Amino acid sequence: MTESPTDGSTDGQGVAFDDPSYRAAVVDLLAVIAYGEISAFERLAEDAKLAPSLEDKVALATMAAAEFENVTRLRARLESLGADPFEAMKPFRPAIDNFHAHTSPSNWLEGLVKAYVGDGLARDFYAEIAAFVDVETRDLILTALERTTHSEFVVERVREGIAADHRIGGPLALWGRRLMGEALSQAQRVAAERDALSALLAGGVDRPGMDLAAIGRMFNRLTERHATRMEDLGLAH
Amino acid sequence: MTESPTDGSTDGQGVAFDDPSYRAAVVDLLAVIAYGEISAFERLAEDAKLAPSLEDKVALATMAAAEFENVTRLRARLESLGADPFEAMKPFRPAIDNFHAHTSPSNWLEGLVKAYVGDGLARDFYAEIAAFVDVETRDLILTALERTTHSEFVVERVREGIAADHRIGGPLALWGRRLMGEALSQAQRVAAERDALSALLAGGVDRPGMDLAAIGRMFNRLTERHATRMEDLGLAH
Repeated sequence: MTESPTDGSTDGQGVAFDDPSYRAAVVDLLAVIAYGEISAFERLAEDAKLAPSLEDKVALATMAAAEFENVTRLRARLESLGADPFEAMKPFRPAIDNFHAHTSPSNWLEGLVKAYVGDGLARDFYAEIAAFVDVETRDLILTALERTTHSEFVVERVREGIAADHRIGGPLALWGRRLMGEALSQAQRVAAERDALSALLAGGVDRPGMDLAAIGRMFNRLTERHATRMEDLGLAH
Repeated sequence: MTESPTDGSTDGQGVAFDDPSYRAAVVDLLAVIAYGEISAFERLAEDAKLAPSLEDKVALATMAAAEFENVTRLRARLESLGADPFEAMKPFRPAIDNFHAHTSPSNWLEGLVKAYVGDGLARDFYAEIAAFVDVETRDLILTALERTTHSEFVVERVREGIAADHRIGGPLALWGRRLMGEALSQAQRVAAERDALSALLAGGVDRPGMDLAAIGRMFNRLTERHATRMEDLGLAH
């Protein structure tokens, strides 16, 4: 970190941004969230086609559109940090595209479970990471995450579906586990490839971070919350 | 029209709503706009797949998401008028679905021209009709229409495309005419089938309306504005 709190290129961004690796980590973080929202939008809009009624289709499309509103804000923030938003997103496209390619729902209920579980998992994960960034970035991330919650109808529809046909509960529970597995495997890939992002979690001289044990506890928390969401849906194993 | 300005079932909606045929016309109008926005969203999200870059895709998806924000407000208004929004949309689905089925873009630039021309035409048409409704409904419609304008990038991309390859100008100009023709033919179908909506344009004892000559002038205005948009795109014939 330099001693200068007012680097012209980071005007008003605070002293943390004088550290190039911190800045790179925040750019990575905002970019991966932004690309995640773009592809969530695309997939939700696509999966909305599986809806059995116009009402259901509109409910899922409402979730899709809400994801998208964040993208504009995240892009603006990336630009204010001097980054090209689309260049910044590039490194994360393979992992996120792979996640979706490996978890393409084959029916409406799988689509709903993916929307609920995937969205929740992403929200929890980014909220955990947000604890390690400056206040302004954290507020942006937490506000973005809050806006993506129109998912009560998902719980209702999945529970109705299981009530109507108990046999679908088992496959849907497996589907939920598969979503979690794919998400973890792609997250691991990102962590392995993006040094700045991993360094953010590890902390710095004057920034708190997580040791391996703390990272383990974080994954425990994420797994527990995933289990709670599966219970919400009536899919506890 | 009844003499009662405070019919309980229309609380606060003003005296015009005491006329059941006026109310039916406004329900039709809001419903056709809402379904139009829902399907515009779907089509834009679909056409975004044709984008040559992530940046272009996000630009079109931003237009799609903006269309969708209106749907929530239009639904709320339909409900406050005592209508089931999805039932109210039903009669308009065939015409709008047909429009899209007959105008499925075969490449990215056709998709952009459709987004720009189709959106502009719908906006002009609803703005014309909004002149015949109560202030509150008019404000809702005009606000909804204003929100759907993120289309500067379309003009830029289409002009760039034509500059790069002059041969595509002719087919795109034809495409624009076809869009206009399909839109008019589906609008005619709706007008023929929905008496309340046509009656709204024709006016009532204490409500101004349009005679055939005025309707002719309205279509002239719509056609002129369509021509202006085609010129914007560099597609004047």
